Amino acid sequence: MDEKAFQDYYPDDLSYCYGCGRLNEDGLQIKSYWEGDESVCRYRPRSYHTAVPGYVYGGLIASLIDCHGTGTAAGAMYRAEGRAMDTEPAYRFLTASLHVDYLKPTPIDGELEIRARVKEIKGRKVIVTSSLYVQGVECARGEVVAVQVPTEFLEALRQRGDGSD
Amino acid sequence: MDEKAFQDYYPDDLSYCYGCGRLNEDGLQIKSYWEGDESVCRYRPRSYHTAVPGYVYGGLIASLIDCHGTGTAAGAMYRAEGRAMDTEPAYRFLTASLHVDYLKPTPIDGELEIRARVKEIKGRKVIVTSSLYVQGVECARGEVVAVQVPTEFLEALRQRGDGSD
Repeated sequence: MDEKAFQDYYPDDLSYCYGCGRLNEDGLQIKSYWEGDESVCRYRPRSYHTAVPGYVYGGLIASLIDCHGTGTAAGAMYRAEGRAMDTEPAYRFLTASLHVDYLKPTPIDGELEIRARVKEIKGRKVIVTSSLYVQGVECARGEVVAVQVPTEFLEALRQRGDGSD
Repeated sequence: MDEKAFQDYYPDDLSYCYGCGRLNEDGLQIKSYWEGDESVCRYRPRSYHTAVPGYVYGGLIASLIDCHGTGTAAGAMYRAEGRAMDTEPAYRFLTASLHVDYLKPTPIDGELEIRARVKEIKGRKVIVTSSLYVQGVECARGEVVAVQVPTEFLEALRQRGDGSD
Protein backbone atom coordinates (compact mmCIF):
# COMPACT_ATOMS: atom_id res chain seq x y z
CA MET A 1 0.00 0.00 0.00
CA ASP A 2 1.18 3.49 -0.87
CA GLU A 3 2.14 5.25 2.35
CA LYS A 4 1.86 8.72 0.86
CA ALA A 5 -1.57 10.30 0.72
CA PHE A 6 -3.01 11.71 -2.51
CA GLN A 7 -2.49 15.20 -1.10
CA ASP A 8 1.21 14.57 -0.49
CA TYR A 9 1.71 14.55 -4.25
CA TYR A 10 0.17 17.98 -4.84
CA PRO A 11 2.75 20.56 -5.94
CA ASP A 12 3.79 22.93 -3.13
CA ASP A 13 2.21 25.99 -4.69
CA LEU A 14 -1.15 24.18 -4.91
CA SER A 15 -1.00 22.85 -1.35
CA TYR A 16 -2.63 25.73 0.52
CA CYS A 17 -6.22 24.52 0.26
CA TYR A 18 -7.96 24.99 3.62
CA GLY A 19 -9.33 21.46 3.45
CA CYS A 20 -6.51 19.41 2.00
CA GLY A 21 -3.40 21.55 1.63
CA ARG A 22 -0.54 20.10 3.66
CA LEU A 23 1.02 23.60 3.81
CA ASN A 24 -2.06 25.40 5.15
CA GLU A 25 -1.27 25.59 8.85
CA ASP A 26 -4.76 26.81 9.72
CA GLY A 27 -6.53 24.19 7.63
CA LEU A 28 -7.81 20.65 8.05
CA GLN A 29 -4.91 18.96 6.22
CA ILE A 30 -6.91 15.87 5.35
CA LYS A 31 -5.22 12.76 3.95
CA SER A 32 -6.74 10.30 1.48
CA TYR A 33 -5.54 6.81 0.61
CA TRP A 34 -6.67 3.95 -1.58
CA GLU A 35 -7.99 0.87 0.11
CA GLY A 36 -8.77 -1.39 -2.82
CA ASP A 37 -11.36 0.32 -4.99
CA GLU A 38 -12.33 2.70 -2.22
CA SER A 39 -10.49 5.76 -1.01
CA VAL A 40 -10.50 6.49 2.69
CA CYS A 41 -9.99 9.62 4.76
CA ARG A 42 -10.03 9.61 8.55
CA TYR A 43 -10.41 12.79 10.52
CA ARG A 44 -10.89 13.56 14.18
CA PRO A 45 -12.99 16.71 14.61
CA ARG A 46 -11.75 19.43 16.93
CA SER A 47 -13.87 20.33 19.96
CA TYR A 48 -14.95 23.56 18.25
CA HIS A 49 -16.29 21.73 15.18
CA THR A 50 -19.64 21.48 16.90
CA ALA A 51 -23.14 22.04 15.53
CA VAL A 52 -25.50 21.47 18.43
CA PRO A 53 -23.91 20.11 21.62
CA GLY A 54 -22.27 16.72 21.10
CA TYR A 55 -22.56 16.62 17.33
CA VAL A 56 -20.34 17.50 14.38
CA TYR A 57 -20.83 20.66 12.37
CA GLY A 58 -22.39 19.89 8.98
CA GLY A 59 -20.10 22.31 7.19
CA LEU A 60 -17.09 20.29 8.34
CA ILE A 61 -18.71 17.15 6.96
CA ALA A 62 -19.36 18.93 3.66
CA SER A 63 -15.73 20.13 3.59
CA LEU A 64 -14.35 16.64 4.20
CA ILE A 65 -16.59 15.09 1.55
CA ASP A 66 -15.59 17.87 -0.85
CA CYS A 67 -11.82 17.63 -0.48
CA HIS A 68 -11.74 13.86 -0.18
CA GLY A 69 -13.84 13.82 -3.33
CA THR A 70 -11.54 16.00 -5.40
CA GLY A 71 -8.51 14.10 -4.09
CA THR A 72 -10.14 10.82 -5.06
CA ALA A 73 -10.97 12.22 -8.48
CA ALA A 74 -7.30 13.03 -9.03
CA GLY A 75 -6.22 9.61 -7.75
CA ALA A 76 -8.73 7.91 -10.02
CA MET A 77 -7.58 9.81 -13.09
CA TYR A 78 -3.96 8.76 -12.54
CA ARG A 79 -5.11 5.19 -11.98
CA ALA A 80 -7.19 5.25 -15.15
CA GLU A 81 -4.08 6.32 -17.06
CA GLY A 82 -1.97 3.69 -15.35
CA ARG A 83 0.56 6.15 -13.94
CA ALA A 84 1.81 7.14 -10.51
CA MET A 85 0.73 10.36 -8.85
CA ASP A 86 4.22 11.84 -8.94
CA THR A 87 4.39 11.77 -12.74
CA GLU A 88 3.70 14.66 -15.08
CA PRO A 89 1.38 16.21 -16.05
CA ALA A 90 0.07 17.04 -12.57
CA TYR A 91 -3.69 16.78 -12.24
CA ARG A 92 -5.82 18.86 -9.91
CA PHE A 93 -9.58 18.92 -9.62
CA LEU A 94 -12.04 21.60 -8.59
CA THR A 95 -15.57 20.99 -7.38
CA ALA A 96 -18.37 21.72 -9.83
CA SER A 97 -21.08 20.56 -7.45
CA LEU A 98 -21.38 19.09 -3.99
CA HIS A 99 -24.33 17.28 -2.46
CA VAL A 100 -24.57 16.01 1.11
CA ASP A 101 -27.40 14.10 2.76
CA TYR A 102 -27.18 14.23 6.54
CA LEU A 103 -28.66 10.91 7.58
CA LYS A 104 -28.33 11.34 11.32
CA PRO A 105 -26.55 13.58 13.83
CA THR A 106 -22.82 12.75 13.77
CA PRO A 107 -21.26 12.28 17.23
CA ILE A 108 -18.29 14.59 17.77
CA ASP A 109 -16.34 12.32 20.10
CA GLY A 110 -15.32 9.72 17.51
CA GLU A 111 -13.15 9.47 14.44
CA LEU A 112 -14.89 10.27 11.18
CA GLU A 113 -14.22 7.83 8.36
CA ILE A 114 -15.12 8.91 4.85
CA ARG A 115 -15.12 6.13 2.26
CA ALA A 116 -15.45 7.13 -1.38
CA ARG A 117 -15.95 5.38 -4.71
CA VAL A 118 -15.65 6.60 -8.26
CA LYS A 119 -19.08 6.51 -9.86
CA GLU A 120 -18.08 7.81 -13.28
CA ILE A 121 -15.17 9.20 -15.26
CA LYS A 122 -16.20 11.10 -18.36
CA GLY A 123 -13.63 13.27 -20.08
CA ARG A 124 -12.35 15.82 -17.56
CA LYS A 125 -15.22 15.08 -15.14
CA VAL A 126 -15.15 12.58 -12.30
CA ILE A 127 -18.16 11.83 -10.10
CA VAL A 128 -17.29 10.55 -6.63
CA THR A 129 -19.76 9.21 -4.06
CA SER A 130 -18.93 9.07 -0.35
CA SER A 131 -20.27 7.80 2.92
CA LEU A 132 -19.21 9.12 6.30
CA TYR A 133 -19.12 6.71 9.21
CA VAL A 134 -18.55 7.00 12.94
CA GLN A 135 -17.78 3.66 14.57
CA GLY A 136 -19.28 1.85 11.60
CA VAL A 137 -22.54 3.82 11.57
CA GLU A 138 -23.26 5.74 8.37
CA CYS A 139 -24.13 9.31 9.33
CA ALA A 140 -23.87 11.18 6.02
CA ARG A 141 -23.65 10.50 2.31
CA GLY A 142 -22.23 12.74 -0.37
CA GLU A 143 -21.61 13.20 -4.05
CA VAL A 144 -18.99 15.41 -5.64
CA VAL A 145 -18.79 16.31 -9.31
CA ALA A 146 -15.12 17.16 -9.80
CA VAL A 147 -13.68 18.75 -12.90
CA GLN A 148 -10.05 18.63 -13.89
CA VAL A 149 -8.48 22.07 -13.86
CA PRO A 150 -7.38 23.00 -17.40
CA THR A 151 -3.58 23.06 -17.72
CA GLU A 152 -3.42 26.72 -18.72
CA PHE A 153 -5.55 27.81 -15.72
CA LEU A 154 -3.43 25.64 -13.43
CA GLU A 155 -0.26 27.25 -14.76
CA ALA A 156 -1.71 30.74 -14.32
CA LEU A 157 -2.60 29.88 -10.73
CA ARG A 158 0.85 28.54 -10.00
CA GLN A 159 2.40 31.74 -11.27
CA ARG A 160 0.34 33.76 -8.80
CA GLY A 161 2.52 32.65 -5.94
CA ASP A 162 2.20 30.47 -2.90
CA GLY A 163 -1.55 30.80 -2.39
CA SER A 164 -1.20 32.34 1.02
CA ASP A 165 -2.54 35.71 -0.09
CA MET B 1 -35.20 46.89 10.00
CA ASP B 2 -34.31 44.54 12.82
CA GLU B 3 -30.75 45.26 13.92
CA LYS B 4 -30.31 41.89 15.57
CA ALA B 5 -29.32 38.98 13.37
CA PHE B 6 -31.28 35.73 13.37
CA GLN B 7 -28.40 34.09 15.20
CA ASP B 8 -28.51 36.66 18.01
CA TYR B 9 -31.84 35.15 19.09
CA TYR B 10 -30.50 31.61 19.48
CA PRO B 11 -30.42 30.48 23.13
CA ASP B 12 -26.92 30.60 24.64
CA ASP B 13 -26.61 26.83 24.98
CA LEU B 14 -27.36 26.40 21.27
CA SER B 15 -24.97 29.13 20.16
CA TYR B 16 -21.78 27.12 19.79
CA CYS B 17 -22.25 26.08 16.16
CA TYR B 18 -18.96 26.47 14.28
CA GLY B 19 -20.71 28.29 11.46
CA CYS B 20 -23.24 30.51 13.19
CA GLY B 21 -22.81 30.30 16.95
CA ARG B 22 -22.03 33.72 18.39
CA LEU B 23 -20.32 32.01 21.35
CA ASN B 24 -17.99 29.78 19.31
CA GLU B 25 -14.77 31.80 19.43
CA ASP B 26 -13.08 29.58 16.83
CA GLY B 27 -16.02 29.66 14.44
CA LEU B 28 -17.28 31.80 11.58
CA GLN B 29 -19.98 33.60 13.63
CA ILE B 30 -22.07 34.47 10.59
CA LYS B 31 -24.97 36.91 10.81
CA SER B 32 -28.17 36.78 8.78
CA TYR B 33 -30.76 39.52 8.31
CA TRP B 34 -33.96 40.01 6.37
CA GLU B 35 -33.90 42.41 3.46
CA GLY B 36 -37.48 42.27 2.26
CA ASP B 37 -38.25 38.72 1.20
CA GLU B 38 -34.59 37.82 1.00
CA SER B 39 -32.22 37.07 3.82
CA VAL B 40 -28.66 38.28 3.52
CA CYS B 41 -25.36 37.23 5.07
CA ARG B 42 -22.09 39.00 4.38
CA TYR B 43 -18.78 37.41 5.19
CA ARG B 44 -15.20 38.34 4.52
CA PRO B 45 -13.07 35.21 4.10
CA ARG B 46 -9.83 34.93 6.06
CA SER B 47 -6.58 34.64 4.13
CA TYR B 48 -6.35 30.93 5.02
CA HIS B 49 -9.78 30.18 3.52
CA THR B 50 -8.09 29.53 0.22
CA ALA B 51 -8.67 26.74 -2.31
CA VAL B 52 -6.22 27.36 -5.11
CA PRO B 53 -4.28 30.63 -4.95
CA GLY B 54 -6.56 33.67 -5.04
CA TYR B 55 -9.86 31.82 -4.67
CA VAL B 56 -12.17 30.90 -1.82
CA TYR B 57 -12.30 27.39 -0.40
CA GLY B 58 -15.45 25.58 -1.52
CA GLY B 59 -16.03 24.09 1.92
CA LEU B 60 -16.32 27.60 3.36
CA ILE B 61 -18.92 28.45 0.71
CA ALA B 62 -20.82 25.27 1.58
CA SER B 63 -20.64 26.17 5.28
CA LEU B 64 -21.97 29.67 4.72
CA ILE B 65 -24.82 28.45 2.51
CA ASP B 66 -25.60 25.78 5.11
CA CYS B 67 -25.76 28.01 8.19
CA HIS B 68 -27.36 30.93 6.43
CA GLY B 69 -29.92 28.44 5.14
CA THR B 70 -30.84 27.00 8.53
CA GLY B 71 -30.94 30.51 10.01
CA THR B 72 -33.24 31.64 7.22
CA ALA B 73 -35.43 28.58 7.76
CA ALA B 74 -35.85 29.56 11.41
CA GLY B 75 -36.52 33.19 10.52
CA ALA B 76 -39.09 32.11 7.94
CA MET B 77 -40.92 29.85 10.37
CA TYR B 78 -41.30 32.66 12.89
CA ARG B 79 -42.47 34.97 10.11
CA ALA B 80 -44.99 32.40 8.89
CA GLU B 81 -46.40 32.25 12.42
CA GLY B 82 -46.42 36.02 12.71
CA ARG B 83 -44.23 36.16 15.80
CA ALA B 84 -40.90 37.68 16.76
CA MET B 85 -37.76 35.55 17.06
CA ASP B 86 -37.45 36.17 20.78
CA THR B 87 -40.79 34.52 21.56
CA GLU B 88 -41.31 30.96 22.75
CA PRO B 89 -41.18 28.22 21.63
CA ALA B 90 -37.62 28.60 20.28
CA TYR B 91 -37.11 27.08 16.86
CA ARG B 92 -33.88 25.61 15.61
CA PHE B 93 -33.24 23.84 12.33
CA LEU B 94 -30.78 21.17 11.29
CA THR B 95 -29.70 20.43 7.74
CA ALA B 96 -31.19 17.36 6.10
CA SER B 97 -29.45 17.99 2.80
CA LEU B 98 -27.16 20.54 1.24
CA HIS B 99 -26.45 21.12 -2.42
CA VAL B 100 -23.97 23.61 -3.86
CA ASP B 101 -23.22 24.39 -7.50
CA TYR B 102 -19.90 26.19 -7.92
CA LEU B 103 -20.52 28.36 -10.95
CA LYS B 104 -17.10 29.99 -11.12
CA PRO B 105 -13.98 30.42 -8.95
CA THR B 106 -14.81 32.84 -6.11
CA PRO B 107 -12.20 35.59 -5.58
CA ILE B 108 -10.88 35.63 -2.01
CA ASP B 109 -10.18 39.35 -1.82
CA GLY B 110 -13.79 40.53 -1.71
CA GLU B 111 -16.78 40.33 0.59
CA LEU B 112 -19.03 37.34 0.03
CA GLU B 113 -22.73 38.13 -0.06
CA ILE B 114 -25.16 35.25 0.29
CA ARG B 115 -28.76 36.06 -0.56
CA ALA B 116 -31.39 33.44 0.26
CA ARG B 117 -35.07 32.89 -0.42
CA VAL B 118 -37.57 30.47 1.03
CA LYS B 119 -38.66 28.08 -1.69
CA GLU B 120 -41.07 26.02 0.38
CA ILE B 121 -42.36 25.52 3.91
CA LYS B 122 -44.01 22.16 4.45
CA GLY B 123 -44.66 21.03 8.00
CA ARG B 124 -41.34 20.98 9.85
CA LYS B 125 -39.36 21.25 6.62
CA VAL B 126 -38.14 24.46 5.00
CA ILE B 127 -36.32 24.55 1.66
CA VAL B 128 -34.05 27.55 1.19
CA THR B 129 -32.25 28.51 -2.01
CA SER B 130 -29.20 30.80 -2.02
CA SER B 131 -26.88 32.59 -4.35
CA LEU B 132 -23.41 33.74 -3.41
CA TYR B 133 -22.08 36.93 -4.97
CA VAL B 134 -18.77 38.76 -5.01
CA GLN B 135 -19.10 42.34 -6.18
CA GLY B 136 -22.41 41.51 -7.82
CA VAL B 137 -21.15 38.45 -9.71
CA GLU B 138 -22.90 35.19 -8.86
CA CYS B 139 -20.22 32.60 -8.08
CA ALA B 140 -22.18 29.80 -6.39
CA ARG B 141 -25.74 28.66 -5.89
CA GLY B 142 -27.09 26.46 -3.13
CA GLU B 143 -30.11 24.70 -1.73
CA VAL B 144 -30.63 23.63 1.85
CA VAL B 145 -33.37 21.35 3.10
CA ALA B 146 -33.72 22.31 6.75
CA VAL B 147 -35.76 20.39 9.30
CA GLN B 148 -37.02 21.81 12.54
CA VAL B 149 -35.44 20.09 15.50
CA PRO B 150 -38.13 18.27 17.52
CA THR B 151 -38.74 19.95 20.89
CA GLU B 152 -37.81 16.88 22.93
CA PHE B 153 -34.48 16.46 21.08
CA LEU B 154 -33.78 20.16 21.50
CA GLU B 155 -34.41 19.93 25.23
CA ALA B 156 -32.18 16.87 25.53
CA LEU B 157 -29.41 18.76 23.72
CA ARG B 158 -29.78 21.78 25.95
CA GLN B 159 -29.42 19.61 29.03
CA ARG B 160 -26.10 18.30 27.74
CA GLY B 161 -24.41 21.54 28.62
CA ASP B 162 -22.81 24.38 26.79
CA GLY B 163 -21.92 22.57 23.58
CA SER B 164 -18.22 23.08 24.02
CA ASP B 165 -17.55 19.38 24.61
